[in-house]
Amino acid sequence: MNYSSKLIEEAVNEVSKLPGIGSKTALRLVLHMLKQPNEYTHNLAEALKNVRDNVSFCNSCHNISDSEICEICSSHKRDKTVVCVVEDTRDVMAIENTSQFTGTYHVLGGIISPMDGVGPQDLKIDSLVQKCQAGEIHELVFALPSTMEGDTTNFYISKRLQELNIKLSVIARGIAVGDELEYADEITLGRSIINRVPYENSLKQA
Amino acid sequence: MNYSSKLIEEAVNEVSKLPGIGSKTALRLVLHMLKQPNEYTHNLAEALKNVRDNVSFCNSCHNISDSEICEICSSHKRDKTVVCVVEDTRDVMAIENTSQFTGTYHVLGGIISPMDGVGPQDLKIDSLVQKCQAGEIHELVFALPSTMEGDTTNFYISKRLQELNIKLSVIARGIAVGDELEYADEITLGRSIINRVPYENSLKQA
Repeated sequence: MNYSSKLIEEAVNEVSKLPGIGSKTALRLVLHMLKQPNEYTHNLAEALKNVRDNVSFCNSCHNISDSEICEICSSHKRDKTVVCVVEDTRDVMAIENTSQFTGTYHVLGGIISPMDGVGPQDLKIDSLVQKCQAGEIHELVFALPSTMEGDTTNFYISKRLQELNIKLSVIARGIAVGDELEYADEITLGRSIINRVPYENSLKQA
Repeated sequence: MNYSSKLIEEAVNEVSKLPGIGSKTALRLVLHMLKQPNEYTHNLAEALKNVRDNVSFCNSCHNISDSEICEICSSHKRDKTVVCVVEDTRDVMAIENTSQFTGTYHVLGGIISPMDGVGPQDLKIDSLVQKCQAGEIHELVFALPSTMEGDTTNFYISKRLQELNIKLSVIARGIAVGDELEYADEITLGRSIINRVPYENSLKQA
């Protein structure tokens, strides 16, 4: 592309480094900002710098937090003996939105993925193992993505914890509520038959 | 959504003001920035502020430019008597990419759209009329979108210029190169029959 201005070109280059945003979308966004009042762009730039420079993480669960210990970890209503292991803060938000989980979380900050160069040492696994060794935790609930990388991470953590007496569980995989069986893939349908639950459980309201 | 940090919430709110970006995408982008080095976000924020504060426009064609007169308007190779009227700078880039136009441009900065509150006084129409009245222009090529708003803008400008002896033309509408007739809409196909061109013209290479 042949931009008529160096400033535009630089801005488009920076914006198009964001995931899922190509140079055409970046140009559209930059031109949109030019049509808005100056404050619009300034507020955006400040908010981004601010979050990048000042973001902090909970010392206990590694979730993004404004304080040293996040609201969930510091709440007296949450069961600290049941810990849900998730990939990142979006998963915490998704599970919190269900209002079905009363335990606490442990945010790994990613999952083991050799293809992307992410190994166990890049994740918050050691601190999880330490928490488990300290005897604080009775149950770990794995809520990682149902992919090869997610399964590998589950397996790696379970191996590290095998000498401890901790209950390990995985969130249920199966047919989504509202889905028709004929459109479900074989593996999901197969697992949902193997892991069938007592009929009474299906009556519990979400 | 229940964000675990005020900083994240502010950043997501600002990013999701951009067109076509909802709060989920905004959160994904913000979390991506948190995983990158600080410079990544700083460079992005600086580039955006920089373009917003320092962008300038060509005094002649109103295209975005780093100098008072843009490269196209100041080039001796361009025909200043043929002026292509476009909506914004993206259209200039699109036409420049074809390498088929040797004239200059006039960027209106939008099109007449009463629904969006955009009237003729919000656009760079007066300066175009002045250029025409000065006798500098022999032909205007309308290259505005083929919509009601684009047609209205064409009509408005043509009315303002009706007492001047200036040739007005519109870029050809028709079947796109590579398209099959059966999938073309009736209006486009109908127009392409009415505005058919001599066979020899179709052999000219783009």
